[in-house]
Amino acid sequence: MGKNEREENGVDPENHNQEEGEKKKQLKEEELSVERIFENQEVPSWRKQLTVRAFAVSFALSILFSIIVMKLNLTTGIIPSLNVSAGLLGFFFVKTWTKLLHKSGLLRQPFTRQENTVIQTCVVASSGIAYSGGFGSYLFAMTERIAKQSTDTLDVKKLSLGWIIGFLFIVSFLGLFSVVPLRKIMIIDFKLTYPSGTATAHLINSFHTPQGAKLAKKQVRELGKIFTFSFLWGFFQWFYTAGDNCGFTSFPSLGLKAFDNRFYFDFSATYVGVGMICPYIINISVLLGGIVSWGLMWPLIEDRQGDWYRADLGSGSLSGIQGYRVFIAIAMILGDGLYNFLKVLSRTLLGLFHQLRYKDLSSELPVADHSSDVIYIFAPTLAFCNAYGCGLTDWSLASTYGKLAIFIIGAWAGAAHGGVLAGLAACGVMMNIVSTASDLMQDFKTGYLTLASPRSMFVSQIIGTAMGCVISPCVFWLFYKAFDDLGQPKSQYPAPYAVVYRNMVLLGVKGFSSLPKNCLILCYVFFGAAILINLTKDLVGKKWGRFIPLPMAMAIPFYIGSYFAIDMCLGSLILFVWEKINKAKADALAPAVASGLICGDGIWTLPASILALAGVKPPICMKFLSRGNNAKVDAFLGS
Amino acid sequence: MGKNEREENGVDPENHNQEEGEKKKQLKEEELSVERIFENQEVPSWRKQLTVRAFAVSFALSILFSIIVMKLNLTTGIIPSLNVSAGLLGFFFVKTWTKLLHKSGLLRQPFTRQENTVIQTCVVASSGIAYSGGFGSYLFAMTERIAKQSTDTLDVKKLSLGWIIGFLFIVSFLGLFSVVPLRKIMIIDFKLTYPSGTATAHLINSFHTPQGAKLAKKQVRELGKIFTFSFLWGFFQWFYTAGDNCGFTSFPSLGLKAFDNRFYFDFSATYVGVGMICPYIINISVLLGGIVSWGLMWPLIEDRQGDWYRADLGSGSLSGIQGYRVFIAIAMILGDGLYNFLKVLSRTLLGLFHQLRYKDLSSELPVADHSSDVIYIFAPTLAFCNAYGCGLTDWSLASTYGKLAIFIIGAWAGAAHGGVLAGLAACGVMMNIVSTASDLMQDFKTGYLTLASPRSMFVSQIIGTAMGCVISPCVFWLFYKAFDDLGQPKSQYPAPYAVVYRNMVLLGVKGFSSLPKNCLILCYVFFGAAILINLTKDLVGKKWGRFIPLPMAMAIPFYIGSYFAIDMCLGSLILFVWEKINKAKADALAPAVASGLICGDGIWTLPASILALAGVKPPICMKFLSRGNNAKVDAFLGS
Repeated sequence: MGKNEREENGVDPENHNQEEGEKKKQLKEEELSVERIFENQEVPSWRKQLTVRAFAVSFALSILFSIIVMKLNLTTGIIPSLNVSAGLLGFFFVKTWTKLLHKSGLLRQPFTRQENTVIQTCVVASSGIAYSGGFGSYLFAMTERIAKQSTDTLDVKKLSLGWIIGFLFIVSFLGLFSVVPLRKIMIIDFKLTYPSGTATAHLINSFHTPQGAKLAKKQVRELGKIFTFSFLWGFFQWFYTAGDNCGFTSFPSLGLKAFDNRFYFDFSATYVGVGMICPYIINISVLLGGIVSWGLMWPLIEDRQGDWYRADLGSGSLSGIQGYRVFIAIAMILGDGLYNFLKVLSRTLLGLFHQLRYKDLSSELPVADHSSDVIYIFAPTLAFCNAYGCGLTDWSLASTYGKLAIFIIGAWAGAAHGGVLAGLAACGVMMNIVSTASDLMQDFKTGYLTLASPRSMFVSQIIGTAMGCVISPCVFWLFYKAFDDLGQPKSQYPAPYAVVYRNMVLLGVKGFSSLPKNCLILCYVFFGAAILINLTKDLVGKKWGRFIPLPMAMAIPFYIGSYFAIDMCLGSLILFVWEKINKAKADALAPAVASGLICGDGIWTLPASILALAGVKPPICMKFLSRGNNAKVDAFLGS
Repeated sequence: MGKNEREENGVDPENHNQEEGEKKKQLKEEELSVERIFENQEVPSWRKQLTVRAFAVSFALSILFSIIVMKLNLTTGIIPSLNVSAGLLGFFFVKTWTKLLHKSGLLRQPFTRQENTVIQTCVVASSGIAYSGGFGSYLFAMTERIAKQSTDTLDVKKLSLGWIIGFLFIVSFLGLFSVVPLRKIMIIDFKLTYPSGTATAHLINSFHTPQGAKLAKKQVRELGKIFTFSFLWGFFQWFYTAGDNCGFTSFPSLGLKAFDNRFYFDFSATYVGVGMICPYIINISVLLGGIVSWGLMWPLIEDRQGDWYRADLGSGSLSGIQGYRVFIAIAMILGDGLYNFLKVLSRTLLGLFHQLRYKDLSSELPVADHSSDVIYIFAPTLAFCNAYGCGLTDWSLASTYGKLAIFIIGAWAGAAHGGVLAGLAACGVMMNIVSTASDLMQDFKTGYLTLASPRSMFVSQIIGTAMGCVISPCVFWLFYKAFDDLGQPKSQYPAPYAVVYRNMVLLGVKGFSSLPKNCLILCYVFFGAAILINLTKDLVGKKWGRFIPLPMAMAIPFYIGSYFAIDMCLGSLILFVWEKINKAKADALAPAVASGLICGDGIWTLPASILALAGVKPPICMKFLSRGNNAKVDAFLGS
């Protein structure tokens, strides 16, 4: 496995987690009082925590969440935190299971919170692979389909299912084993916060208190209702998509002119749900990014067609308008990434410095003895840094490390020596090792707070990772075979980050020479703007900073348009109105509603892709024509 | 004005009222206790009951309701009782008016329930003309547009605004004056129930109790919200209707095959609202009628094309499949009408016989001295019968009397002597006189129960009728000029009863010879079935009878298809679910929600028709194509 790779799309989980970090901290105080409720309950031994039903449920949920994450990967790359959904659904399934067994009179083992934690760990580990496996970014960027779009003639890789599975197994387990020795230090000695892991533990604990179980039941019922609705809505939409530009996803709800500039509501239950989970500022940022780019910049640049770029280029050519879209987005993402990398790194080093004053850790630092390749030595060290930074700030920098690897390895290998594939592979290695490590630490924190044994947590993480390494590639393969236009701009699954990643590595390999006129200047401007915005956000303090948009979120619509931003803002609006009407109810049920929307629509993609594979085509096309075209079509059909 | 005319479409108000009659009776007992609340309130003199603000509000509401009724006339002919909406909106407007005046410091007169009654009377009288004026039936049936469809070459009348207004003034006032002397007898001496009038009085009384005013405020707020939503929804839909078969009204929500047989949800807020007001059995009947006809009979008859009727006829020809649709519907409507005519007549005679045993009324019976035409003498007598029957059963037979007149006068005059126009005009005279008379009596009952003076009631009825005689024709004229395809089957405004009425008179004039093969037999079957169903309904008693469908309601979709039946059933479903979830809230707010849906969508037709008149066309066509056609169209547009 001489290839090195990497991945990215987690704009959202990262920022989202950070945004929510504060909220979660206050949960910590509640834990101590919660623990009193469990005082009289015996903690099962670690073997008893790993039940068959837990892994059966984990397997089913892993498939569900892998499909959902894959769909999100391939549509916009924005992936919200699905921890709450996983927790809720895990609770629901095991409860149903125990109830059924109880009714049938078979042996009955009580459903413990440790078991719940095991399921959670397993599912999150498994669906994490669907994200860090790079199916919407570095891995897909290696293929010919994406290479065609970035119009380079450099090396491509023909993907095979076996190769992907093998690759994922190696890099994921490397990440797992490299940080295990650090558990005691980070969780018990350093007492790092790990806000997400803490929040998940709190959620699981709450399910198992009598009062919490009642609320959880309500939430599960709500989730079920919305899930059904969302699934049926996806099913209904399907009937009207008999061709390209057919169906609700092409509904010019804000007019044809706005539609041409990709401003429209595309009726996606998924992104309405994502909008309900994401903080308001993310949704506003995305919308703002869409307005700045598609509402302002691109029309202005298009006016200069023939001057800034050749008029005879196709709309997909990266030497034309598409180039501005892709490279300006990359510049902004890199600017944001770099700023946050430096920020978190300095905090990490500062934190470590304080800790190390009192403890000697050097002997326990991981030694890179698993591989002789550059990146395999480097990665575990960064994995430690990331796990530590994440514990401190809840901000996983996995994708930023990946991007670093793209440039460094890409430029180092050069175009002649297969630099493109080397860069992308390096990104994959980096991303997987770094993110698996920090995920494991989060889970250890959860386990610590729910009194699950570290051993059972580790086993479930291993099983979950193994599941993910098999399930995710299979799900991707399903999408890959079912939808021929996967990765095409304006298609149902544009996989925006695949093109972005390929162009990042091309930039590293070929330098800036390939950019169209004035594009480099604009890139510098947006790179600088991203850093400046972040800096302002940090300097003005929390009070005003929360109104300043996030450059990373702003960059996504630059390339794919702002239709999903409108979905997400609708989600925000629904949540906002709901909170105005009944704050208590909204707080209790909004996550369940959002999860229902995302899961229902997500699971519909499974039958949808099976239908596509079987060659079953929808019967009707809902088409939107301008009045002039409609008259022509009527005349044509009439004759 | 030597012409005689008539009209029909009130399947719903009739049956609906009867269905609700029982419910309303129980309200009567509550009145006595309600009256105690008003004990200390002074009743204003009759002149003070007729305020300027009352008539200004009445005028605005008259226009609103005329538009709504006209829209309903021209789409399906199903018109629910709008009394509650009129009451609510009247209350709302005068409340706002007094509040504003109070704030501006100007003189302030308290808003009394008598004033509310005056508005109610005026608005109901005025919008009643929009219904009994026959704009969707007998009057429109005289025009060339409808004659073309029934493919007869007999006499047509070119309508003019002046002629319509003049005609309505004569026949409406004839009805008014012919029953005034009977008020004392029917209301005070006979103490007839007039369930609708009683219910309206109860509603108005309830608004003016402190507790009722609170509920009314809630209802008005709900109505306002839904009104806005419904209006905006109508507005939104408009953008996608750039051509024929464009937009949500052509949405094949149940598939293309079902759409071809006119089974689809057409997203009409109006009919969802109508469905919420109508009793469940009406909606079920309409749906059942649609399934029997478009789901079963028409496909079977179409299979016999070439045998039962010539294959080379257009789909609109009455000698073809369209003939079966129209004439079988007519047979069913006539069967139902005849049965109920006989039933109510026998009850009326029986009731009169009992009353007359004790009182000598003969001297007060109206004498027909207004005109020398046959129908003008006959009508006031029937007006008395109808007013009496209506007071007893709440079942106005105006349209049945109108249908009788069509056949009798049509056959009597014959084709050679302009029998078609004579029949239709006779229907108009009959309908207007008879329905104005019974409406007036209902209002007198309302006035009696709200302590409004009979004199002020009569004045407001006169003013309302006069308004209606001017407003309704103007609104009709707006529709007539704005929509060229008014009256065309499958258009936005098919005006189904216009064709049905013209064919009724043709049947009277020409006999059965013009019917296609086997059509007469089928007509006999359905005529008999209608009578049989009614008979069964009456014989099995209330417990089971309420599950038996109404033939009149079943007949409507025979001609125009069941898309509105699906809307109405959706309305029923919403109400049903709402009642399951929160019965108290549903009972309190459902009428307001339904009114909001109907009024919002209805008032949107005003700007819509103004846009159409101004030549502003919608920009987008939402088109539905089969997969095959879509491929063709894509190829055509691509080339």
